[in-house]
Amino acid sequence: MRLRGRKGIRENLEQQQELVVLNPQVYKGRWAEVFGNDRPIHIELGMGKGQFISGMSVKYPDVNFIGMDMYDELIRRASEKVRAKWDGQGAKEPETVRLALGNIEMIEEFFAPGEVERIYLNFSDPWPKKKHWRRRLTHPRFLDKYRQLLNENGEIHFKTDSRVLFEFSLNAFAAVGLQMNDISLSLHEGRINEAHVMTEYESKFVGQGMPIYRCEVMVGEAAVRRYQERKMEMFE
Amino acid sequence: MRLRGRKGIRENLEQQQELVVLNPQVYKGRWAEVFGNDRPIHIELGMGKGQFISGMSVKYPDVNFIGMDMYDELIRRASEKVRAKWDGQGAKEPETVRLALGNIEMIEEFFAPGEVERIYLNFSDPWPKKKHWRRRLTHPRFLDKYRQLLNENGEIHFKTDSRVLFEFSLNAFAAVGLQMNDISLSLHEGRINEAHVMTEYESKFVGQGMPIYRCEVMVGEAAVRRYQERKMEMFE
Ligand SMILES: C[S@@+](CC[C@H](N)C(=O)[O-])C[C@H]1O[C@@H](n2cnc3c(N)ncnc32)[C@H](O)[C@@H]1O
Ligand SMILES: C[S@@+](CC[C@H](N)C(=O)[O-])C[C@H]1O[C@@H](n2cnc3c(N)ncnc32)[C@H](O)[C@@H]1O
Repeated sequence: MRLRGRKGIRENLEQQQELVVLNPQVYKGRWAEVFGNDRPIHIELGMGKGQFISGMSVKYPDVNFIGMDMYDELIRRASEKVRAKWDGQGAKEPETVRLALGNIEMIEEFFAPGEVERIYLNFSDPWPKKKHWRRRLTHPRFLDKYRQLLNENGEIHFKTDSRVLFEFSLNAFAAVGLQMNDISLSLHEGRINEAHVMTEYESKFVGQGMPIYRCEVMVGEAAVRRYQERKMEMFE
Repeated sequence: MRLRGRKGIRENLEQQQELVVLNPQVYKGRWAEVFGNDRPIHIELGMGKGQFISGMSVKYPDVNFIGMDMYDELIRRASEKVRAKWDGQGAKEPETVRLALGNIEMIEEFFAPGEVERIYLNFSDPWPKKKHWRRRLTHPRFLDKYRQLLNENGEIHFKTDSRVLFEFSLNAFAAVGLQMNDISLSLHEGRINEAHVMTEYESKFVGQGMPIYRCEVMVGEAAVRRYQERKMEMFE
């Protein structure tokens, strides 16, 4: 029987210590130990119900994934989704995934400089009112934090249905001097990509025929260098 | 009686030497002489029927404007529009405007390095087929040319109704390492700007409720420096 209410959810999470991390600050600088290996770490900030992180984790077994959200209930739902996906693959434990409870405002307390290789920002809250723009996860103050924790291959992959948030984010990436790559103003038009893992929000909006905006940001020096070497292919 | 046919149009243009320049390569490096002053020179590449350049020229009398297109007929129509606008302002001759016949492919033959302060690209042909992308006026090979002829305050102001061209252009600006500013994915939404002069295509598309995309690119060192000093205001 599933326990109900706040307390029940918390107990559920406490019983999943191999998958759920309730105190990520404890592991700052020690995530390689948590995973027991040195694979690159990709994190999704604001993962919601976990459709993306669970799909990515079965698709890319050579990557360690951490999904972060600030609500117990979402961590619980994501844990179910991860387990269902891994069961479906006949795998025992989802050992390359962790679901971490935390507020992204404090992200520098969860990861040491250079500890992360990629940040996924998927359908982040758009915060339409000007007085709330500081909360947008692509605000320059967040970009400064992300830059700290990304390693030399570091990239940010951002997608959203919100035109207003995307416009703001492009201006923020430009202002902070980050190298953008593969800007797309309508992701699913023409080129549906089999390799592409959708999030919950994305499935919903794509189903409604709405455009999805996407962009990559090259942050680490090696990531920028690789981009520089290949960028002109886009125009050939 | 207005002369008709190709020959008639050419004769008409030849009779307007104070406004129309049929051989712009002759004036490379000498545009200040043409205008008889040292005001900054702003050029529109692919001006069409001249609604934008005529409107800008009466609005900003301290700027020298050159509208360029490759068709005689469009130069003629633009010349009528410029004269009508200046007449409406009670001005004698449109002395801060020139309409130049030329193919933008050869732009480096029309302007010396540093001779231009701003380039306007308005509703440039989208060239949807991949094999024609090289003709897009925001292709990196054009951006390299523009960079040559812009001065230390140089900027490119680009607007279009074409989502596909805008996406391509953002990626091109990013690839060439140009500093973008004020990216807008829906120019006329919410903030209709009295100062904003519309082009023919723009009036038509805005009338149809279509989104207009716009972006500025800071090219000259001083332009980039001014941007750097003010950019964080966007996020406050
Ligand atoms: C709009 S949902 C998108 C969910 C999912 N990424 C998707 O694309 O379907 C945004 C998520 O970000 C989480 N979130 C927003 N701000 C957060 C913060 N400061 N710290 C942690 N999570 C946050 C919310 O709880 C929510 O689950
Ligand atoms: C789509 S129209 C836009 C006209 C105008 N700027 C507007 O916004 O209403 C593009 C214009 O660019 C001109 N054009 C395209 N390629 C050109 C080139 N290589 N050299 C000169 N003019 C060109 C065309 O003749 C046409 O007038």
